[in-house]
Amino acid sequence: MICVSDKAIEEVALQIDFEPELIAHTSGSISLSALSRFKNHGVFYPLQTFSKAREVPLSNVPFCIEANTPENKTRLNILAGTLSEKIYGLDSEQRKQCHLAAVFANNFVNHLYVLAQQLLEEKNIPFDILKPLILETAQKVQQLAPGEAQTGPAFRNDIQVIEAHIEQLKSDKLEKLYRFVTASITEVSKSKPSEGSRIK
Amino acid sequence: MICVSDKAIEEVALQIDFEPELIAHTSGSISLSALSRFKNHGVFYPLQTFSKAREVPLSNVPFCIEANTPENKTRLNILAGTLSEKIYGLDSEQRKQCHLAAVFANNFVNHLYVLAQQLLEEKNIPFDILKPLILETAQKVQQLAPGEAQTGPAFRNDIQVIEAHIEQLKSDKLEKLYRFVTASITEVSKSKPSEGSRIK
Repeated sequence: MICVSDKAIEEVALQIDFEPELIAHTSGSISLSALSRFKNHGVFYPLQTFSKAREVPLSNVPFCIEANTPENKTRLNILAGTLSEKIYGLDSEQRKQCHLAAVFANNFVNHLYVLAQQLLEEKNIPFDILKPLILETAQKVQQLAPGEAQTGPAFRNDIQVIEAHIEQLKSDKLEKLYRFVTASITEVSKSKPSEGSRIK
Repeated sequence: MICVSDKAIEEVALQIDFEPELIAHTSGSISLSALSRFKNHGVFYPLQTFSKAREVPLSNVPFCIEANTPENKTRLNILAGTLSEKIYGLDSEQRKQCHLAAVFANNFVNHLYVLAQQLLEEKNIPFDILKPLILETAQKVQQLAPGEAQTGPAFRNDIQVIEAHIEQLKSDKLEKLYRFVTASITEVSKSKPSEGSRIK
C-alpha cells in the first residue's frame, strides 16, 4: 500500500524493484493507471478528513476501491471490509469527482467556519456560540437531502435581511462571496419550484 | 413572546393594544428598539436552524438575550435557562453579527452540500458517500479551531490538484466559486505563517 502524498506516488512506485503480489495507492485524485507497471494494482481511497489531533473511527469511513482485475478488486474489498462497513467500487473518473465534491463539502465548508469565526471575533463573540449550529447543519443532511435542509434569507429571498448583511460586511472579499453564494442559492431554489415542502 | 418572521414583528407589535408585563421577539436581525414602545422589552434569539422534519433538542441551543433593563434581562435569562444551558448576553449589534456569521456557517455551508451533491450526481455517485466526511468536518471544529482543522489542496497550495479540479468543473459558476474560495483559503493560511502544527 503506497500511503504518500499524491505528488510522491509516481516516484515511490518507481523505487519498487520487485513485483508485489498486489499494490495500491490511497489517493483520491490519482488514476489507477499510475500503478500500471505492476501486474496486480488498485486504489484504496478512504474518503475522510484526517487531523493529527483527532482520532477518526475507520468503521464509518467510506473506502473507494478500484483495481485492474475483478480478482484484485475483490482482494481490496475484503481488506477494506476488515476496516469499514462502507465500501464503494468507483472507477478513476468517479473517484476524482468524489475528491472534488469532498473539497466543496469539507475544505470549503471548513473555510466558511474560519470566515464565520473572523466575523464573530470582530464583535468579541466566542466561536463556541456557533458550534451547535454547525453540528446541526451537518447532522441534518444525514437525514434530509441538502436541498430540503436549506434555510436562510437567500433561500427565502428576504431582500431586507440580505441588504442589511451586505451593509454589515466590512470586507470587499466577504461581500463578493456573500453576493455570489446568495445568487447561487436563489438560482438552485428557483430551479426546483415544485417542491412544496420547503421550510423556513 | 413575538415568534413571527422578521418582517412581521413591527406589524404584530402595533396590534398589541395593552401593556404586556414583558415582551420579546426572537429574531437575530431585528434590533431591540423595534419593541421600544413597550415599557419592558427584550430579545430572545435562539441561534439554531430548525426544520419541520427534524426535532432539535433545545438544551443545546444558544439563546442570545438582550433587554431594556438589567431586571428584564434577568427575567429572560431565567426563562432561557429553563430551556437551555447556553445563554449569551449580546447587544443588538453583536446579535446581528451572530446572525450574519450563522448565514456563513449554516446557509452557505448547506449550499456547499447541495453543490457537492450535484457534482456527485453527474457521475451517478450517491450523496451517502459524503455523509461521514460532512459529519467529521462539523465535529472537528467542536474540538479544534477551524483554522487548525483546515485541510485540502488549497491549504497545501497543491497547484496540480487545484488545476485538475478546475479542469473537471464543467460549470463557469462552480469554477468561479472554486477559484474564489481557493484564493481565500490561501490568503488566510498565509496570514498565519507561525502555526507549525498544520496538518495535511
